[in-house]
Amino acid sequence: MWTTFFRRCSTAPATSVIYSHRSGAKQKKMSDSFALKTPRGTQDFLDDNVHRKAAIRTIEDIFVDYGGKELDTPVYELTDVLLGKYGGEASKLVYDLVNADGEKCSLRYDLTVPFARYLAMNRITKLRRYQIGKVYRREKPVMTKGRFCEFFQCDFDIAGAGETMLSDAECLKIVDEVVQKLDLGPFTTRVNHRSLLEAVLLHCGVPPEAIMPVCSSIDKLDKEPWKDVSEELRVKKNIPGAVVSQLERFITFEGDNREIIEMYRKEVSNLQVARSISELELLLKYCDAFGIDVSFDPSLARGLDYYTGMIFEATLRGESEGSGSIAAGGRYDSLAHSLTSTTKKPFSVPCVGLSIGIERIFALLHRKLPKPKEITTDVFVASPQKNLLLERISIWNRLRSAGFRAQFERKNNAKLLDQLQFCEANDVKIAVIVGKKEAEEGVVKLRNVATREETIVRDADMIEEIRRKLNDN
Amino acid sequence: MWTTFFRRCSTAPATSVIYSHRSGAKQKKMSDSFALKTPRGTQDFLDDNVHRKAAIRTIEDIFVDYGGKELDTPVYELTDVLLGKYGGEASKLVYDLVNADGEKCSLRYDLTVPFARYLAMNRITKLRRYQIGKVYRREKPVMTKGRFCEFFQCDFDIAGAGETMLSDAECLKIVDEVVQKLDLGPFTTRVNHRSLLEAVLLHCGVPPEAIMPVCSSIDKLDKEPWKDVSEELRVKKNIPGAVVSQLERFITFEGDNREIIEMYRKEVSNLQVARSISELELLLKYCDAFGIDVSFDPSLARGLDYYTGMIFEATLRGESEGSGSIAAGGRYDSLAHSLTSTTKKPFSVPCVGLSIGIERIFALLHRKLPKPKEITTDVFVASPQKNLLLERISIWNRLRSAGFRAQFERKNNAKLLDQLQFCEANDVKIAVIVGKKEAEEGVVKLRNVATREETIVRDADMIEEIRRKLNDN
Repeated sequence: MWTTFFRRCSTAPATSVIYSHRSGAKQKKMSDSFALKTPRGTQDFLDDNVHRKAAIRTIEDIFVDYGGKELDTPVYELTDVLLGKYGGEASKLVYDLVNADGEKCSLRYDLTVPFARYLAMNRITKLRRYQIGKVYRREKPVMTKGRFCEFFQCDFDIAGAGETMLSDAECLKIVDEVVQKLDLGPFTTRVNHRSLLEAVLLHCGVPPEAIMPVCSSIDKLDKEPWKDVSEELRVKKNIPGAVVSQLERFITFEGDNREIIEMYRKEVSNLQVARSISELELLLKYCDAFGIDVSFDPSLARGLDYYTGMIFEATLRGESEGSGSIAAGGRYDSLAHSLTSTTKKPFSVPCVGLSIGIERIFALLHRKLPKPKEITTDVFVASPQKNLLLERISIWNRLRSAGFRAQFERKNNAKLLDQLQFCEANDVKIAVIVGKKEAEEGVVKLRNVATREETIVRDADMIEEIRRKLNDN
Repeated sequence: MWTTFFRRCSTAPATSVIYSHRSGAKQKKMSDSFALKTPRGTQDFLDDNVHRKAAIRTIEDIFVDYGGKELDTPVYELTDVLLGKYGGEASKLVYDLVNADGEKCSLRYDLTVPFARYLAMNRITKLRRYQIGKVYRREKPVMTKGRFCEFFQCDFDIAGAGETMLSDAECLKIVDEVVQKLDLGPFTTRVNHRSLLEAVLLHCGVPPEAIMPVCSSIDKLDKEPWKDVSEELRVKKNIPGAVVSQLERFITFEGDNREIIEMYRKEVSNLQVARSISELELLLKYCDAFGIDVSFDPSLARGLDYYTGMIFEATLRGESEGSGSIAAGGRYDSLAHSLTSTTKKPFSVPCVGLSIGIERIFALLHRKLPKPKEITTDVFVASPQKNLLLERISIWNRLRSAGFRAQFERKNNAKLLDQLQFCEANDVKIAVIVGKKEAEEGVVKLRNVATREETIVRDADMIEEIRRKLNDN
């Protein structure tokens, strides 16, 4: 049969041969006995053509329903655009390109900074855009933990001022709809507010310059217990024990949304806290109207520097629990401005967005859904003798022009039994059989693959007859 | 209204500010008064969400019908994989990445070499794959001529031995179907055979080492007259005048497929010519059975080194003539082998493929098809007074859950007249109007946007009533 049985090569290739750091001389030798592979931390995907594509189309359709326009940006940006936008370690992790045309360029690290660059460059004050594309991290890959140097991101963002917290709530609604439509099972969306978190950290005595390092420790609380995080805060980040104890009270406080909000109102009287809390309350109202559940989580921090308001993370519960977040995002009102602050005309636009963990979703669907059929076809054109390839092609061509999903046997000299077995294995409905005798008489044999019943029809009646049989089916 | 009027930024940004080569000191200065832009030769695409996506889906569906599996490969490859595969200038045009992990990597130059690398690495002897992705050329961009440093390619390739020339013919059939389904108008597919061309050049007296340079000159014949090409052959490529005159006889010979084949049979008696000619004759037979027209063109050469057999190019006729080729490709039976020739286990697989000029097709569709509507929605939820945003969201949420294409007014305080005008401008069918009075009474007003007729229905009956009205429409 003409289609091939392939193996899904998502993990095998990249781990099969791993180069280690070598001296120049040894590298030369490596390249003599050259081993074919993808670069470290990258992988090939041969798609099963159904789950991934269907999932992406579902997500795209939802994005479009929410007013999203697809934006495609270059895979590399001017290095200056990316520098200093992510904070901490991240800025070291960009791939630089060897200079061309005197411009310093780097592969994009995410899709958010390129979006902000696009908005600022074109001074766009209102846009809903989505983008599904690969991003690059120049770090040591850990394939087993799903840490790659090249991977997909799938983002939807809303730029522009609107009713306070409405766009934020819409982002949560979109995530909810994606998870529902893809049937990923029960999940939890946790939300917090960067400004609230910052105010609370300051209130507890964290010095302003330590806010981001403390956030990145706190962000680990979904994977590590408070004991480990508090030790990291004390030992690695030099936060005094008294401050860490204060933090514990707020960060690990458990309760429903109402209880947490009341705790903050009672414990921290502060304008910044009051404003963030009322934004979160408004968010919860919109979420309620949108019919979605979200949980306020004081420990949610998110690693990136650029968030300024609401932040969120969605994780699956039940059997898929522990597979990490499947969506996350937040508000970043200063990013476009930070890109233009040194230009003649600074530009600013508030933004909020979400990122779907599309690679995780592919992996989940791959595990959950049945392996798709090798081929989907209603009609298959077969022959009992050799040398009838041109006749089969002509018949197939008529079927295809008439709009049928059809295939034909591509081997000139194939056994009829093999062809009929292929039809049965792939749920083909009708086999059109053309032999030497049939070709001479201007007829074809139509075989109902399921019942094995065969009828002879004239060439001229074939299309009509197949249409009738398929409709009866 | 919530959606934004955007401008299509496909050309503007990248040409607006252009860096020239500068010394380090000047560059530092540039970066102080930093101008936001995309790197030279790259562009952003904000999609209209309809034409591009619809075109890609149409093409993908055709590829899948022909048994294609989608392959996604990394955007960069080991430099060793790309080196020496394209010939001539091309090898200088790859972007190198700054070393990471001791591996030398480069951005991919096309999708064909990565496909061959995938086949060889996984020792796959049979596969139909397609890939739509960006490729990179490190050269001076000429945006006005559509020469970019980053652009899309859209490839379908068949790997594996099969009936001679059948896969080749299928590639031509796929191109035919894509052009027809996208309704791009009349077009011509020209074919030639690399082996035939090579044999003819040798027959005319071209020295073996000059075959590729001569091919790249001949390849310009679709844009330049023979006079210019022959001068280039004599002056730049040092081909003797007598050889050039010999070449002229064969290369510029005009006639139908039969006449050209007979000319070759008569003029060049040579095993290589005879074999190529009978392959082309077989190809024409399959094309005939597939119901497609192709024209044998002795001057078709194609620039790349790796072709070994049939080559082709499809160009539009009529009003779109001169827009360059919209599809091209050919057979490359040695590429996988050339990637593994220095490894312990050399591997070989014959391949033939096609590349759709998807960027040109986007441009054509953009010119031909009407600008799509800003939004496609059947129902719009509006309010005559302020402060009813939560009510509108709840109603919209019920409509969305019931499967309607619905939108709602996102401004808390919008004028009803603006909302109704938006409905009329965007062909919305029904406006659901909820005012303070309606909210209190548990009813909504349904307005037929076209007739402006309004009816009051109970909240509980809303979904059913809207479904009835939409069905009546």
